[in-house]
Amino acid sequence: MSEAAVGYAREQGARFVEELKELLRIPSVSTAPEHVGDVRRAAEFVADGLRGAGLENVRLIETSTAVRKGHPLVYGEWLHAAGKPTVLLYGHYDVQPAEPLEEWKSPPFEPEERDGNIYARGAVDDKGQMWMHVKALESLLKTDGTLPVNVRVIVEGEEEVGGEGIAAFVREHGDTLKADVALVSDTEMFAPDLPTLCVGLRGMIYTELEAKGAATDLHSGMYGGAAPNPFVALAQMIAQIKREDGHIAIPGFYDGIEDPTKAELDAWRSLPFDEEEYRRHEVGSTELTGETMFSVLERTWSRPTMDVHGMPGGFIGAGAKTVIPAKATAKISFRLVPGMKPEETFAKYAEFVEEICPRGIQVKTTLIHSGEPIVVSTDNAYVRAATDAMAKVFGKETVFVRGGGSIPIVGDFVRQLGTPTVLMGFGLPDDNLHAPNEKFHLANFHRGIESIVRFLDGVGAVN
Amino acid sequence: MSEAAVGYAREQGARFVEELKELLRIPSVSTAPEHVGDVRRAAEFVADGLRGAGLENVRLIETSTAVRKGHPLVYGEWLHAAGKPTVLLYGHYDVQPAEPLEEWKSPPFEPEERDGNIYARGAVDDKGQMWMHVKALESLLKTDGTLPVNVRVIVEGEEEVGGEGIAAFVREHGDTLKADVALVSDTEMFAPDLPTLCVGLRGMIYTELEAKGAATDLHSGMYGGAAPNPFVALAQMIAQIKREDGHIAIPGFYDGIEDPTKAELDAWRSLPFDEEEYRRHEVGSTELTGETMFSVLERTWSRPTMDVHGMPGGFIGAGAKTVIPAKATAKISFRLVPGMKPEETFAKYAEFVEEICPRGIQVKTTLIHSGEPIVVSTDNAYVRAATDAMAKVFGKETVFVRGGGSIPIVGDFVRQLGTPTVLMGFGLPDDNLHAPNEKFHLANFHRGIESIVRFLDGVGAVN
Repeated sequence: MSEAAVGYAREQGARFVEELKELLRIPSVSTAPEHVGDVRRAAEFVADGLRGAGLENVRLIETSTAVRKGHPLVYGEWLHAAGKPTVLLYGHYDVQPAEPLEEWKSPPFEPEERDGNIYARGAVDDKGQMWMHVKALESLLKTDGTLPVNVRVIVEGEEEVGGEGIAAFVREHGDTLKADVALVSDTEMFAPDLPTLCVGLRGMIYTELEAKGAATDLHSGMYGGAAPNPFVALAQMIAQIKREDGHIAIPGFYDGIEDPTKAELDAWRSLPFDEEEYRRHEVGSTELTGETMFSVLERTWSRPTMDVHGMPGGFIGAGAKTVIPAKATAKISFRLVPGMKPEETFAKYAEFVEEICPRGIQVKTTLIHSGEPIVVSTDNAYVRAATDAMAKVFGKETVFVRGGGSIPIVGDFVRQLGTPTVLMGFGLPDDNLHAPNEKFHLANFHRGIESIVRFLDGVGAVN
Repeated sequence: MSEAAVGYAREQGARFVEELKELLRIPSVSTAPEHVGDVRRAAEFVADGLRGAGLENVRLIETSTAVRKGHPLVYGEWLHAAGKPTVLLYGHYDVQPAEPLEEWKSPPFEPEERDGNIYARGAVDDKGQMWMHVKALESLLKTDGTLPVNVRVIVEGEEEVGGEGIAAFVREHGDTLKADVALVSDTEMFAPDLPTLCVGLRGMIYTELEAKGAATDLHSGMYGGAAPNPFVALAQMIAQIKREDGHIAIPGFYDGIEDPTKAELDAWRSLPFDEEEYRRHEVGSTELTGETMFSVLERTWSRPTMDVHGMPGGFIGAGAKTVIPAKATAKISFRLVPGMKPEETFAKYAEFVEEICPRGIQVKTTLIHSGEPIVVSTDNAYVRAATDAMAKVFGKETVFVRGGGSIPIVGDFVRQLGTPTVLMGFGLPDDNLHAPNEKFHLANFHRGIESIVRFLDGVGAVN
């Protein structure tokens, strides 16, 4: 029965894109206090979309943590496929900040079509991919009046800030999300036209390392040479955490890491991947960095690493200010791989910076958010339903890859709810996630909807 | 004849302070493009003050460099003391940025009197001290109708951004500033009630070190481990430039340094200075840093050093953004001591960072501004006139110290014009120069005016 739905989706495709543009115009930047209202508007837009598709019991679920009020979850369901499996569809409607604004060719919240792509913050991560879910459900319900499976939809607004709200909801109201399989479309295809399932994600800890020196900002002429400089101290600590060969020098950092199997590594080696192409066209740097004894795919999929994202403090305006700031901060994250635990890694890191902290400096480490690394099983009927669906749409065998990023809630689905999870994403490697000029290839938006329709149909046939 | 002028200054002191407050209300932040108009307003205020005092030929002199239009100089003169020496009075009307604003107890451009101090950005550096010069001239001219010496006044608006405009003016129109001695009040007293002349200043180079990695911002999940991180690279370079023991590891950095004489070091040792007091009450850090084989006074007066002032780039908002920025910058300055040349130090530094630049990173070093280190002679009649003047006002012997900061133009006065320069400043060590809650001790404002009146009188007696 998916043929009628696929036909509907093709016929209505242009409208689906216009609706997506409306959603992309809402700057739902979850980390920015000034966008709280926009984030809620996006939630309501999604709820309306679910209602329009024919979902039932659609509602916003408020979230909050000990420290702050959170952004709402959007929930919807359709549970009339008696005896059929239940599918949990997950996506997120929040987006990363758009800075640096000056590097966007078109404004981040004014979606623009160019060369078969739609450019906007959130186009692929994850508004566009989440909207595929909504539109696949609509296509089935509007043509068949029914779904081949039971469906629960949960869309969060805090994925880009660690997803604490949904994590708490899963802990406390896990039953609401009870399902046989979860479908997440927030990953990418390994190459254009190559259907891809992601079977592993790195975890992460996102931290702030604050260094305090003098009691107040000081004049570097008068005090330079005797007063501690927090930026110099942070630099000295960062250089000791991560060596130039990419090795992380925190004691015990690599303890317990579970390496990929030989079979998985062999499969990775057969993927169409050229490190020089990747360097030139994806990264664009003069050289790649990191642990050169590992392949680039290992370095980004199955090896932990550390990055610095920004160093607030001091003087960052144009020109010169000769200040020794009283304090400075580094936003530092670590990507974790299976075998590592966020809280343990954070503890080792916090202990290490205390140990290497330069004279005259006091450090404070804060854990902003974290997510567990995961590897999902590939040996089940749901994964086969996904590969079958994509084979029909793309006419090709699916490849299994891992992702270097984190989708914190996937770990909770797998560990807390015991729900097998299918990570079927339709982004492309050059979609500029988290960067200026984020885009979504429109052909993949449409192929994604079709793949999801066929996947749900396939899951409906699972006994 | 200075007694009448001193009497006038005492009588009019309250008005002088009110005028200073007016000047302090003008946010003449020379580094900030948005304050160009305010900087000019401050220049006009100073010009009006000079006219009001009775100076002649008062005018704004436009400055410009190859790259930008500069802030104006203010010039005034009084040249009717035939046969008497000519004194060049120098000050600056521009100020440092006031950030971080939230740490000010009263707003930086709304001067407030508390506990005998006036709090505002520029209170002591240098509007308050420059205004002492203007008011000393007024006091003499309004009571005697004449000055004991010939006077030229030059007040610049770019001291906090390297003083390129006045440097070019000195090179091209040095004759306009021809004088027998220059008086600069932009330094501090070694301790409250201890009259102080500054006889040496460190030079500086203020630079930006830019590190470029990927062609665009990248998602740290997807690319972390293989893509170069400019912040990590900057940290690794900074850690190699400055070791934890304070040593600067740039090859040849210390070559040619002229150490202070044994007599000067002995004199420093006899100053009322307690490193523990300094650590606790001036710096407020848990420890002091730097080259511990040198005393704190040596470390800040006669040893070169390096500081990092800010590291723009990446994500510095609240919360988390998992970005590997395409580029990041460190604002890095070096303080130089006699025997070092700014352009040579910059060349060594630029060469060193090229050499240690991590894989995948391209560096660019930019010299924002520079100033030569200087040591001035203490063995002349003008210095004696200054110490005599301060002895009368403070009832104490003057101490000779150096300053760790830079007043770029002093090097030009000494080197280019061959003018002996007297650095008679009335700031206090806790005046928070370049920091929040900058202040000027009002008693010192008044004692400064009186000292300048007596100094000019004393110079008038020099044959």
